[in-house]
Amino acid sequence: MSLSLNQWTTRRWSLPEAVDGCARHGLEAVGLWREKVAETGLARSAKLVREAGLRVSSLCRGGFLTAGGLPGEEGRRAFAEALEDNRRAVDEAAELGAACLVMVVGGLPGVRPGEPLPAGFSRDVAGARERVAEALASLAPYAGERGVKLALEPLHPVYCPDRAVLSTLGQALDLALPYPEEQVGVVVDTFHVWWDPALHEQIARAGRRIASYQVCDYLHPLPADVLLGRGMMGDGVIDFPPITRAVAAAGYIGDVEVEIFNADVWAADPDEVVATMKERYAGVVTVPAAPFTVT
Amino acid sequence: MSLSLNQWTTRRWSLPEAVDGCARHGLEAVGLWREKVAETGLARSAKLVREAGLRVSSLCRGGFLTAGGLPGEEGRRAFAEALEDNRRAVDEAAELGAACLVMVVGGLPGVRPGEPLPAGFSRDVAGARERVAEALASLAPYAGERGVKLALEPLHPVYCPDRAVLSTLGQALDLALPYPEEQVGVVVDTFHVWWDPALHEQIARAGRRIASYQVCDYLHPLPADVLLGRGMMGDGVIDFPPITRAVAAAGYIGDVEVEIFNADVWAADPDEVVATMKERYAGVVTVPAAPFTVT
Repeated sequence: MSLSLNQWTTRRWSLPEAVDGCARHGLEAVGLWREKVAETGLARSAKLVREAGLRVSSLCRGGFLTAGGLPGEEGRRAFAEALEDNRRAVDEAAELGAACLVMVVGGLPGVRPGEPLPAGFSRDVAGARERVAEALASLAPYAGERGVKLALEPLHPVYCPDRAVLSTLGQALDLALPYPEEQVGVVVDTFHVWWDPALHEQIARAGRRIASYQVCDYLHPLPADVLLGRGMMGDGVIDFPPITRAVAAAGYIGDVEVEIFNADVWAADPDEVVATMKERYAGVVTVPAAPFTVT
Repeated sequence: MSLSLNQWTTRRWSLPEAVDGCARHGLEAVGLWREKVAETGLARSAKLVREAGLRVSSLCRGGFLTAGGLPGEEGRRAFAEALEDNRRAVDEAAELGAACLVMVVGGLPGVRPGEPLPAGFSRDVAGARERVAEALASLAPYAGERGVKLALEPLHPVYCPDRAVLSTLGQALDLALPYPEEQVGVVVDTFHVWWDPALHEQIARAGRRIASYQVCDYLHPLPADVLLGRGMMGDGVIDFPPITRAVAAAGYIGDVEVEIFNADVWAADPDEVVATMKERYAGVVTVPAAPFTVT
């Protein structure tokens, strides 16, 4: 396994800056975001990472497939638009040569990420999960034909209302296993799954289905905006080595992406963030942390 | 099933006031808290509820059993103290004739509820879970001898660091099933479990092990203090009727407790809170809510 910078960790950097930064810090891989790729242009982005000799460990992100659970024409239109957008994301992942397209499947129909509950949203979480399965049946073969692997990401249950009704690794595997391994895999993101009592059993069950291993810490208490509760490894509650060992034992040989959404990290000098990330990766992710790391 | 007021919902009321309130609003059951019982005195509390003809649907709470995961003498002392406190809680539940003693098992060793991570806390979530199982082996027979049922409460994973390493109903059942049904059961609290993809399967598996069914809504977004994210039924994202039906189908015939931790609810006139609770119970918990209830 080798360290990869998910570019949202250094979000002040443009894609060219992130590519330069990876080279400067001796990283072999980068995780890209569609917004950043769009800013730079798809063809130019692909050229830049190729010329820098970087692997693209993932493209973030496809998904948001659940709005089809809204009633009538609104639901049908939302579902069609989501599929269309996801096909574009697959095309982008193919052109970038990304190891996978990360799928954040979406929350309750009608609820937008980070926003208050709107009028007319749906409480039907089971139905929303069925919409995800339906969308996958359409997208998996499309991705497979283009050599792209969809990576289903279970998100911490605190994000179930607005970001992902996919809440556990076991649930992600239930969705992924009917498809060929090269079409659909799963993401193991320590932030989202560290608490899961079935984690080790499900990592073993996942085996080669693990398409991406992402690490960052889980801060406690969470900040008011729970999206920003991701911290530098060592700053939170996660005991990384047992998870890292389990992922390795399952046969994962891909890159380890560090993806941090955190106001302080974003405010810091990106070069310092990358330096800290390398240090913490070596000191915390692969060997036990001190009882508590002062930050 | 019949409606019960968990007295923390109307926490401005003392125990005698809550007992009066239940009588005034025609409720047949009340869920008590140890702090409130202690204020009024155990014997007097027991007498008051008995004379009012109320069932005690639960006593909150035992638990916080994980500090034994701290190293050395500190851990041993914390574990012994936790067991001692839990035996007292069992004795109180027996004297009150409570249907069960709710067990909030505790978070990572050394982390106190709602407080920042302290120096020297433990990240060993698996070890913390073993401490809970160990404590249960000691407490279950003690409770059984006194006619008290321990009710293991899985808490939403957002509380895993500081309140409960017991995070899913399935995990709670794995712990409960080795013991006789009259000694150890589980709590189904809608706030904590609504997101769980295995919920319906595990409710069916639980069957008569369900010792308490608690309802309140899950607000979105959560307030900055996530403990206060519990809302009046209809104010959040939970679709209650499928859960209520599943609990009934599992054979649960106990009371349905409404337990709300919410700054606005606590600031309101308790009599109005109880009136709203009755109305919402009838209108939301047993029949589908409107797509969105304006509060």
